[in-house]
Amino acid sequence: MENNLNIYNTLTRSKEKFEPHTPPHVGMYVCGPTVYGDAHLGHARASISFDIVFRYLKYIGYKVRYVSNITDVGHLENDADEGEDKIAKKARLEQLEPMEIVHHFTNRYYENMNMLNIERPSIEPRASGHIPEQLEMVQEIFKNGFAYESNGSVYFDVKKYNEKHNYGKLSGRKIEDLLETTRQLEGQSEKRNSFDFALWKKADTRHIMRWKSEWSDGFPGWHLECSAMGMKYLGKKFDIHGGGLDLQFPHHECEIAQSVAANGEEAVKYWMHNNLITIDGKKMSKSLNNFITLYDMFSGENNLLEKAYSPMTIRFFILQAHYRSPLDFSNEALKAAEKGYAKLMTGIKTLNKLEATGDSDFDVKDFAKKCFKALDDDFNTPILIANLFDGIKHINSIAAGKEKIEANDLFLLQNLYNDLALTVLGLQKEEESKEDSKVLDNVIDLLLNIRLDAKKNKDFATSDKIRNQLTEMGVIVKDKKDGFEWEIK
Amino acid sequence: MENNLNIYNTLTRSKEKFEPHTPPHVGMYVCGPTVYGDAHLGHARASISFDIVFRYLKYIGYKVRYVSNITDVGHLENDADEGEDKIAKKARLEQLEPMEIVHHFTNRYYENMNMLNIERPSIEPRASGHIPEQLEMVQEIFKNGFAYESNGSVYFDVKKYNEKHNYGKLSGRKIEDLLETTRQLEGQSEKRNSFDFALWKKADTRHIMRWKSEWSDGFPGWHLECSAMGMKYLGKKFDIHGGGLDLQFPHHECEIAQSVAANGEEAVKYWMHNNLITIDGKKMSKSLNNFITLYDMFSGENNLLEKAYSPMTIRFFILQAHYRSPLDFSNEALKAAEKGYAKLMTGIKTLNKLEATGDSDFDVKDFAKKCFKALDDDFNTPILIANLFDGIKHINSIAAGKEKIEANDLFLLQNLYNDLALTVLGLQKEEESKEDSKVLDNVIDLLLNIRLDAKKNKDFATSDKIRNQLTEMGVIVKDKKDGFEWEIK
Repeated sequence: MENNLNIYNTLTRSKEKFEPHTPPHVGMYVCGPTVYGDAHLGHARASISFDIVFRYLKYIGYKVRYVSNITDVGHLENDADEGEDKIAKKARLEQLEPMEIVHHFTNRYYENMNMLNIERPSIEPRASGHIPEQLEMVQEIFKNGFAYESNGSVYFDVKKYNEKHNYGKLSGRKIEDLLETTRQLEGQSEKRNSFDFALWKKADTRHIMRWKSEWSDGFPGWHLECSAMGMKYLGKKFDIHGGGLDLQFPHHECEIAQSVAANGEEAVKYWMHNNLITIDGKKMSKSLNNFITLYDMFSGENNLLEKAYSPMTIRFFILQAHYRSPLDFSNEALKAAEKGYAKLMTGIKTLNKLEATGDSDFDVKDFAKKCFKALDDDFNTPILIANLFDGIKHINSIAAGKEKIEANDLFLLQNLYNDLALTVLGLQKEEESKEDSKVLDNVIDLLLNIRLDAKKNKDFATSDKIRNQLTEMGVIVKDKKDGFEWEIK
Repeated sequence: MENNLNIYNTLTRSKEKFEPHTPPHVGMYVCGPTVYGDAHLGHARASISFDIVFRYLKYIGYKVRYVSNITDVGHLENDADEGEDKIAKKARLEQLEPMEIVHHFTNRYYENMNMLNIERPSIEPRASGHIPEQLEMVQEIFKNGFAYESNGSVYFDVKKYNEKHNYGKLSGRKIEDLLETTRQLEGQSEKRNSFDFALWKKADTRHIMRWKSEWSDGFPGWHLECSAMGMKYLGKKFDIHGGGLDLQFPHHECEIAQSVAANGEEAVKYWMHNNLITIDGKKMSKSLNNFITLYDMFSGENNLLEKAYSPMTIRFFILQAHYRSPLDFSNEALKAAEKGYAKLMTGIKTLNKLEATGDSDFDVKDFAKKCFKALDDDFNTPILIANLFDGIKHINSIAAGKEKIEANDLFLLQNLYNDLALTVLGLQKEEESKEDSKVLDNVIDLLLNIRLDAKKNKDFATSDKIRNQLTEMGVIVKDKKDGFEWEIK
């Protein structure tokens, strides 16, 4: 399959021509959310960035299997103060059930994603649902000599791995430097080296999510799920692995080490990382307590927000920056995005109503090329959007009769805007139902007041016309002594 | 906790006072869908029936943990014609991935459930996500002597179980009769007796969903998932287990046997079974190819349907029959339900606008008692709905000034209808956004035509009034040579 797509590969620090292993198939894995709380703006950026990748790859003809995980194996603990005995005596139903919390936040996450018009990935596997697969991978790494057991936990032996392979190749870190910066932790640890990471953790009594294994009752290390599930659903080698920039180290570095240690080869051809959302230059994160949840964004209920912003405003705001660039949150930028989004959608509405008027004053084919060139250049959505805005100037000129457009060009231009803005960028007309129905109530009241005036003026032709036409539309009017009532049939 | 609720227990064939093990907690498990196709009307009946149980238990003050499974470990096979070698050579991405199909239909199932206003259960565990738990249960049953291995598969030894316990206690079947009716299958089978059932099945080469075990690479028997996941999330003993009548035997009978064989005691206190949907007296099912999917119901695109029926019409149709009674599909019955639902919702609208007018002509407290009595009598929704319709007669009389109602009674009545119809029965105002916006377009056009007439008649007061008030409402009018254009800001 031919394409002109170039993707920036974090592994090589360069843009590379996109050549999947087994075209027309593409396998793509993206790190999904940990579901112990509501998604915030940072989650939206990751999901929207890779939604564009998913949409565009499909648009240019690939069959994409897109896997994005739900991390539900967390460190949720029983209330330690209660004491083990007391907890053990509690009936199962009286105990905290992590899966109930996970289910609640997973549902809310999907609700957010639906609002943002994110296309659901092909498979959204859960860490807790893939314990056997993860245990098998630990066994494999163990068998190959890159893991050791310590007090019932199993750790990845980074030093030993680094003797044969290159730990740090993705993030550019050196094991010597890591040793230097983390040495102070040693001595207290059951790990041989501070940079070793857990493949399997023995659960202490407070841990309520636990599974049996040959080493201990415990739970898998965090880095393991992505390696195991990526391999299960996409194979030992697949095309794209994505995630937030903050996952590059240690998470993705550890993933590479796990795949090589288990299978003798790397899994991923193109590593893609989206940049983060910042507030006043600082990363938006839970730990810094400077995050704004998506529900807050949509409702406006957060002190950092001057108003509510619609899901499409958020989407447009994020698409106006390239996914690898930093993006700073501000009310000004969001309000600008709100206007920009509206302008684009109005432009499309105008375009869809245009009629051909003669020879084109504007090179539509060249314009289309520019648009695709932006997407082919590592999914450069801000350049694409800038192009689309340029086009709207022409559209408005044509609508005003100042420019002309030929029929085939018009057809091409209409398809281009609808395909790029709606199908690829995933923008959509915002639901206006509530607003609509408020306007509807007001408009019908106004119409019926005009009718009352007409009746007072003995203009029965008008008053009857209004009543009859409303009835035809399904609006039933009842005259009352002091006015009117109406309902929609 | 006090309650007057009585539940029909299939196990005892009688209505029993509801007394959960550890009030105020209630543990409830309901068999969910197999996700290899779209949900049909029969699925809607099961989910709505137990949604009422969930809603009412919460309404009367219980803390309910409601678990309903997703059966995704199916018998999906590779295309056998291709031959093993050819399949093995295919890249992972080129192969059929059952989890991708499962994910697709699971998403569609939830979409249907949301449309029907089903409250999402507390936990919706997947069979594929609980392989370790199921394997542990097989080991336990094996250890206790109620299972045997045969060619890598593990079967439940029903005869041996029945020597100590009672296989057939739920369905009323006798093992001797079962032997009689199924004897012809013996000899060809790896089972000791035809009524034995698989706990673990060795996967043949075509089976693409498989996990390692001490017996074979294979997959769990179908009955096992519910026993294992019920125990995991609700404990070894819990209160309610529900499902369709067709699951009573063998599925639920096998579940009881599994729990007793593994834990030495039964898990479930109240077994509840909803009756099925029939068409012309025959069960609606995939195998009989007489089913109507919910998407078909909502769109009307099915030869058995005279029109589309809204989700709330379906919900009302199902609630108008008691969950244990048969319910026959017909367009007539659905059209009647559509009217009934509209009548109830209009009644509530009228009720919410009523004003107190003096002493009540109608005993509201007694009426409320009757309503709760219906629900307390094994969730008798048709009797409740009949009562609500009776009440609407009074509501309409009061609205017409023919009856009176006192302020406290009115408050009670309004709360009662809103609580019972919306919170407990889960009815909701149907989304009318699309309809609304069509009406809105028409009404604004009509209003602007009236304005054109006014202008022609030099009635500028009216024409300005219309324009100014529309502007205030956010409807921007642009005058054109040959008419007008408008848009909502």
